[in-house]
Amino acid sequence: MILHHPVDRRGLQVLTAQECLTLLAGAPVGRVGFVAEGAPVILPVNHLVAGWTIVFRTAAGSKLATADMRRPMAFEVDGYDAATRTGWSVLARGVADVVWLPAEERSLRERDHTPWVDTGDDDRWVRLRPDTITGRRIVPEPDRP
Amino acid sequence: MILHHPVDRRGLQVLTAQECLTLLAGAPVGRVGFVAEGAPVILPVNHLVAGWTIVFRTAAGSKLATADMRRPMAFEVDGYDAATRTGWSVLARGVADVVWLPAEERSLRERDHTPWVDTGDDDRWVRLRPDTITGRRIVPEPDRP
Repeated sequence: MILHHPVDRRGLQVLTAQECLTLLAGAPVGRVGFVAEGAPVILPVNHLVAGWTIVFRTAAGSKLATADMRRPMAFEVDGYDAATRTGWSVLARGVADVVWLPAEERSLRERDHTPWVDTGDDDRWVRLRPDTITGRRIVPEPDRP
Repeated sequence: MILHHPVDRRGLQVLTAQECLTLLAGAPVGRVGFVAEGAPVILPVNHLVAGWTIVFRTAAGSKLATADMRRPMAFEVDGYDAATRTGWSVLARGVADVVWLPAEERSLRERDHTPWVDTGDDDRWVRLRPDTITGRRIVPEPDRP
């Protein structure tokens, strides 16, 4: 079955929201974007997807401060195949916050999520409930419209 | 030969500037971070490294606007192995600008750099001359200090 995706002005396939969520949930690593002292920062994290929400564990620091102040955050995942020069990327944007409710934190803990870097200090959960989730896929040259 | 790297407070190896540059240059895809309408954005690009400078081609849009206004930009590359739960990441931060000098543009063109998404419109080069380049490596658990 060939799915006919819409394409954007650059010829990239526009992914559906459901495709974006599936790719977000399946990626072992995502990248958090936030603003620290007026300049953008990108840091990798191991995340979980719960419904439309992206969560990750963190310790005291700039990611937690961003969530604590309910500032805008971006979250990106991507995948590339250098051999075929194909790939995809998904970007979620919204306002971050910190998970405060014990019940919610407990339910996240029960998902047995161990960050790759586990210092024991990463005991806070940051949550991003995106306002927008967008994704694009690079299709191989011969398949481009 | 075992290189003894310093480790940060989270137990991650701190990479040297030269290691960061080598990883930046070798990555097929990097991620540009910038601020659009007050909120962070992360977009993947195919880049080149020339000395201490990161360059990529782009068309009119938010990445070009960031460079045109000489605003802060972040650039990230990473690599992960889900099987061993090891990985590394490099973050460059500085101010972006647009390459204007014909000679400089010509020398970049001569490097035969074709972005994966080549619409023909990506005829401008954005340059990031980082103020800081930092990198970390996750070492396998048994090797952690």
